[in-house]
Amino acid sequence: MTLSTATVPDATTPEGLESVLAAAETASRSWGSRRPSERATVLEAVADALDSAGDILIPTAMAETNLPEARLTGELKRTTFQLRLFAEVLRDGGYLDARIDHPDPEWPMGAPRPDLRRVLEPIGPVLVFAASNFPFAFSVAGGDTASALAAGNAVILKAHSGHLRLSAQTGDVVAAALSAAGAPQGTFAVIFGTDAGSQALADPRVKASGFTGSIPGGRALFDIANSRPEPIPFYGELGSNNPVFVTPAAAAADGPEIASGFIGSFTAGVGQFCTKPGTLFVPAGSGLTEALRQGTLPEGAKLLNSRIHEGYQEVLGTLTANSRFSVLAQGPDPLSNPPGPTLLLTTAADVLAAPHELQQECFGPTAVVVEYDDASQLPALAATFEGQLTATVFGADDDNVAELVEVLARKAGRVLWNQWPTGVSVTYAQQHGGPYPATTAVGSTSVGTAAINRFLRPVAYQGFPQHLLPPALQEENPLGIPRLVDGRRA
Amino acid sequence: MTLSTATVPDATTPEGLESVLAAAETASRSWGSRRPSERATVLEAVADALDSAGDILIPTAMAETNLPEARLTGELKRTTFQLRLFAEVLRDGGYLDARIDHPDPEWPMGAPRPDLRRVLEPIGPVLVFAASNFPFAFSVAGGDTASALAAGNAVILKAHSGHLRLSAQTGDVVAAALSAAGAPQGTFAVIFGTDAGSQALADPRVKASGFTGSIPGGRALFDIANSRPEPIPFYGELGSNNPVFVTPAAAAADGPEIASGFIGSFTAGVGQFCTKPGTLFVPAGSGLTEALRQGTLPEGAKLLNSRIHEGYQEVLGTLTANSRFSVLAQGPDPLSNPPGPTLLLTTAADVLAAPHELQQECFGPTAVVVEYDDASQLPALAATFEGQLTATVFGADDDNVAELVEVLARKAGRVLWNQWPTGVSVTYAQQHGGPYPATTAVGSTSVGTAAINRFLRPVAYQGFPQHLLPPALQEENPLGIPRLVDGRRA
Repeated sequence: MTLSTATVPDATTPEGLESVLAAAETASRSWGSRRPSERATVLEAVADALDSAGDILIPTAMAETNLPEARLTGELKRTTFQLRLFAEVLRDGGYLDARIDHPDPEWPMGAPRPDLRRVLEPIGPVLVFAASNFPFAFSVAGGDTASALAAGNAVILKAHSGHLRLSAQTGDVVAAALSAAGAPQGTFAVIFGTDAGSQALADPRVKASGFTGSIPGGRALFDIANSRPEPIPFYGELGSNNPVFVTPAAAAADGPEIASGFIGSFTAGVGQFCTKPGTLFVPAGSGLTEALRQGTLPEGAKLLNSRIHEGYQEVLGTLTANSRFSVLAQGPDPLSNPPGPTLLLTTAADVLAAPHELQQECFGPTAVVVEYDDASQLPALAATFEGQLTATVFGADDDNVAELVEVLARKAGRVLWNQWPTGVSVTYAQQHGGPYPATTAVGSTSVGTAAINRFLRPVAYQGFPQHLLPPALQEENPLGIPRLVDGRRA
Repeated sequence: MTLSTATVPDATTPEGLESVLAAAETASRSWGSRRPSERATVLEAVADALDSAGDILIPTAMAETNLPEARLTGELKRTTFQLRLFAEVLRDGGYLDARIDHPDPEWPMGAPRPDLRRVLEPIGPVLVFAASNFPFAFSVAGGDTASALAAGNAVILKAHSGHLRLSAQTGDVVAAALSAAGAPQGTFAVIFGTDAGSQALADPRVKASGFTGSIPGGRALFDIANSRPEPIPFYGELGSNNPVFVTPAAAAADGPEIASGFIGSFTAGVGQFCTKPGTLFVPAGSGLTEALRQGTLPEGAKLLNSRIHEGYQEVLGTLTANSRFSVLAQGPDPLSNPPGPTLLLTTAADVLAAPHELQQECFGPTAVVVEYDDASQLPALAATFEGQLTATVFGADDDNVAELVEVLARKAGRVLWNQWPTGVSVTYAQQHGGPYPATTAVGSTSVGTAAINRFLRPVAYQGFPQHLLPPALQEENPLGIPRLVDGRRA
């Protein structure tokens, strides 16, 4: 295998894109017709290949993203774990949601029930837009790719401009591993350039798309997906403030720990996580504000790239110019790269007066501390937020927070108790997604095993002879999967 | 209970709409916080009330829709069956997709797994647009309403202009039954008028919408839903041609039966079913064309209303003016109301030359017969179709139709074998939806128990103490529902 892409790849040409799309359409049918267990083996081969290529990929990622080796090593491990977890999902087969209704002449609807069998099938070629901030886990071989491939679809990966060489290298590893493991040619390809991405999204051969990035960029792509003659599902994760609410009891019991935990969380990854806690509500006069003012801010580390640095400068400039904020704590050279972290301070009254002004997402090591007077204000403060990926409560077990939690569960896809939102575990019960603008598809997750559902569509077969049914629906259950038979789990 | 709405209701005023929306937002939270089994009891009470009101509702429906008593009686039975089936879904609890991950310090992702628990929660107030052609089953108390209420959401029902009095009466029955059974005030309301519908769809308190109707109308509403500051899921069922493919073997074995079955299916409900078979592919020279020419067309019956009659005249006029078609068979007064049914004839070569011209949906008793020369043409003919609700094959068990079925399964949500697509059974495995324009949300169904998924959203709780968790996620499983615990069904 050659991984010698020392130069940054050129933008994909219209001719190049056409050949990628044509190959993806053909490959998707073949790949999607494989048994899930066959696809599982292939996904594991891709994971093995990526693990083996770490020595080449990680130095490239370090050079392109300013992220440190330990973080990237951990992220690559997460990425290959994710592929293996989807292999497990495929072998289990529960994700197919297979349902069989046998004929029932006495069906109480008033007409006989026919033989009906329903299963989730691959949606078709999926276009994935890679993210800037996770060069492995939300990029070429990341969660969207893993779940779309697992579901049985070809994947066209639009590389992020922040790590083009890494994208090309990772794409080579993935494509070679797929090919060696017997996946059809065209099952996976990387494309480069904004134009190629937009054109692919508008192409009728693309049947769904995943995206992680900014609100303006994501909304523009969402609009393309929905204005096509045939609109397609667009799963965009756009932005989140991830508010944290500290009750008086928690502040009294664990003030210093909460202060240091918050500083660690909002500066983790140089504040470039989509789950960075952007706002911390603390009781006025509890000492927590003072603990944060005197807390040790970590040394600045470089932001991912100059474009992100420019964006950070702009947003931080807007925030600090807002008279509703004062600076609570700040590291050296807050507008340089690396930037010293910034903590801003405001009050509950200001948030209630101008929520949207104060809840702008700031991609980088800045967060806002809000002092409130009374815990009874918390549900109303929580209600001022738009849709969120996460929302967090630090409280004591006997705190009266049921209403606050209920409001937060309406606002966010994941609600946490006495834990920080950064560090998103890849599991069966994970939910990474929420009401807009956290995501453009409120019913979906981009992390965890349920992410596979985004790239499937149901098909029912009525009255079919056994030999023409997909294996998942044949009477003798050749795949050995869990099914709903006549309304009962079997 | 008063059901004396003898006059057609006025359009809902902006003030009236505001009070409906405000009440729905409050009621939705309260209704959604009820245990599923409590909501089940309420749905059954609504079903009982509707059954009891049949003597009042059916005459109104007959007067407003031209549909006969037997059909409407059957449809009301289907409607109340549907409510009771969702009650069963609620008591089962599997629809909640509850997942529990216990903490795992050795989780192979590289970081400990926290305690994570995920469940589907109500999405919030749902706006349902009623259909013209099913005054009960896809209207005020129809499938969208039943599934949205079951999921735990308040429902705002936009009445269809084709049966306003019936809508008001049915709405009174539903609202009174909900109230008597203890549902919060505001859980359900009927609104009237196109403006009120559009305004409600754009209102931030509405969190999802369901629709059944035409492509232009549905697309306009889809665009409103997606251009909101906070876009919301729009589940629209817009249009379908429902092609049927007869193999040479089937034509030879069952020609006369297929001919009479087709005539029965495309004229059922005066051709006003969304699953009406609009195109029948038959082998040239098989005698099937002749059997259709000489078949007995049923007497005309009146279309739903004058607006639909005008639309039918227009589309039939366009089709018959098309030189690619000849008239194969026609009843008397084909453009009157009641219209005699019309069968048009064309060839596979014409379809391949101008598919979109020949595949227009015609709402009424008209269908197209296409003669093909060779069964090997069928997959290519199938591939010319846009997304469909259904696609059907009439074949023999040893026909070589795997490729045809595979193409159709990509095009349609439901594929049938030797059965007609009209008559959609309400079951666990039903799928009523497909790629655009069959539906605007390819992963969804509007009929069957899976329809409830449209109106839910996932929420994960991380690290929470038991008493703050929803019952579905508490360790001791107080709801007694099936759950995925550490990746295993429990």
